[in-house]
Amino acid sequence: MELEGPKGPIKSELERVEEQLRAALSSNRPLIQKVGSHLLATRGKRFRPTVLLLSAKLNGNLPPLAVCAATVVELIHTATLIHDDSIDKSELRRGFPTVNSMWDDDVSIAMGDFIYSKAFSILVMHKMYDVMQVLAEASHQMSAGEMLELEKRNDLDITEEEYMKIIGDKTASLISASCEIGAMLGSPEDGARACFSRYGHAVGLAFQITDDLFDYVGHVRELGKSVGNDIKGGKFTLPLIAALKNATSKDRARIQSIVASSAFADGRWEELLALMNEYDGIGYSRKKAFAFAAEAKQTIRPFEDSPCYKYLCSAVDYTVERRQ
Amino acid sequence: MELEGPKGPIKSELERVEEQLRAALSSNRPLIQKVGSHLLATRGKRFRPTVLLLSAKLNGNLPPLAVCAATVVELIHTATLIHDDSIDKSELRRGFPTVNSMWDDDVSIAMGDFIYSKAFSILVMHKMYDVMQVLAEASHQMSAGEMLELEKRNDLDITEEEYMKIIGDKTASLISASCEIGAMLGSPEDGARACFSRYGHAVGLAFQITDDLFDYVGHVRELGKSVGNDIKGGKFTLPLIAALKNATSKDRARIQSIVASSAFADGRWEELLALMNEYDGIGYSRKKAFAFAAEAKQTIRPFEDSPCYKYLCSAVDYTVERRQ
Repeated sequence: MELEGPKGPIKSELERVEEQLRAALSSNRPLIQKVGSHLLATRGKRFRPTVLLLSAKLNGNLPPLAVCAATVVELIHTATLIHDDSIDKSELRRGFPTVNSMWDDDVSIAMGDFIYSKAFSILVMHKMYDVMQVLAEASHQMSAGEMLELEKRNDLDITEEEYMKIIGDKTASLISASCEIGAMLGSPEDGARACFSRYGHAVGLAFQITDDLFDYVGHVRELGKSVGNDIKGGKFTLPLIAALKNATSKDRARIQSIVASSAFADGRWEELLALMNEYDGIGYSRKKAFAFAAEAKQTIRPFEDSPCYKYLCSAVDYTVERRQ
Repeated sequence: MELEGPKGPIKSELERVEEQLRAALSSNRPLIQKVGSHLLATRGKRFRPTVLLLSAKLNGNLPPLAVCAATVVELIHTATLIHDDSIDKSELRRGFPTVNSMWDDDVSIAMGDFIYSKAFSILVMHKMYDVMQVLAEASHQMSAGEMLELEKRNDLDITEEEYMKIIGDKTASLISASCEIGAMLGSPEDGARACFSRYGHAVGLAFQITDDLFDYVGHVRELGKSVGNDIKGGKFTLPLIAALKNATSKDRARIQSIVASSAFADGRWEELLALMNEYDGIGYSRKKAFAFAAEAKQTIRPFEDSPCYKYLCSAVDYTVERRQ
């Protein structure tokens, strides 16, 4: 499934986001310009701008600052990705070399900071203080989630609850903030804000669980990045956590030994996948993702008369049915 | 010279800054708490809070939000230091292991982001939008400066003008912002703001040139960090730039060969220092630092009747006369 469907009613707005991103990432400083152009070429899915704009257009009209807010949200997301790729030592993203592999970790740190501060400068310039309030909180949550993830790195005793806290903070917080901001700008008076914040949170959880599944069952060509990276980086996500919980003590030890060695040659990766399937790690995670997707749709039922409703539902379907 | 002198009239305010820093860096998440405690133990000089509070107390009274603004400025500075130390691969700061050496670069990236977003959250919480405007711009400038520095890394053709641009953006911008914010909060009506922004800029330049001199002529014990790091990291600062400009073509080649090899054993470091002294790299830089210090004092002459004036001058002296 592609994201083109949900983007239907906001195509021209997304083009304006693209223009604003181009402006924000261009500079008369050669290194900033080069890294910025590379980032623009590595075209992201623009998922956060999409749900922000759909939430903003709930009453049919687009509020004036929605495109700007969507740009800022994508900038914050981009800054986070650059830092995350550096932390995770990822080499590919969407089929393109990451900033840390094309340049180095130093450029990643500085360019992430540059984009992040650019995002806040834009908000200040337009005096978008309510938006800033939501995004300052979300950014803070995202970095706290990153710290918790680092704390739990290589910890095979990580619980499902801790995993949910990490993805709630790291991923769902910004998607939730995007939807909340959209609703806040578009429907300031009708209580949509809290509802869309919840919708975005559930969407974010479905999105991240699906992402974590890709690291086990994805295809390199479709993903534009390799699989098995999470385990190699000591990041133990829901599929593994669930399988470990269900496995017999003997098989738990087998899984742990494969994971601890991070050696996936000679059929060891396939052995791990077979064990994870046997103990329902993959199936359970997929069910969880679909459950959060269903919850997201349920949350916005009060707005089913809005012309954007079906697109917002379709954005939810996308999170769990996409191939990359 | 110690910073205790200039801190005289704002001792109790600085204690409140310290309390607020402790609160901002504490967390129920163990890793954040541990890194936060380490950062607090690595007691910084609190130079930026000092000049902010002195600038704020220009009319004798302390404006209510000055302590909070001083805390936020120190948080932003701390976040920047953590990222900078990771980029520069520094192992010591003020005699303590850096975050990247005590933990790793991943924790540095995430903790820097955490502290930076905490700073903006505090500003949002107190609705300090004018302060935010100044700090968003300064943060943006700081990261742009970091990118320019990376661009010029290992470039022996770097000019004095490019060096001044880098330190203006990387260091002077936040010190200038601190003084501007102080004046803005303390004397909103009398045009002090632009004046203190200029004062802080000149102070920042004097401060950074002096810092860069330490990397050549400092003492490890006093500095709490080792010397020669800038050259090893491909960071060519004013003393070297000035010496290269003045040297004969033969000696320029000698300097370049020592710098390019980064091998400082067997008397090569002493040879480099001798050449830099011969071509006035050290002396010229020191003169520049003193000239900016004088300019800073000149800028605030219109406020010489304020009880804080002499302390603000003494803060300027500190930047060029300190030993660490």
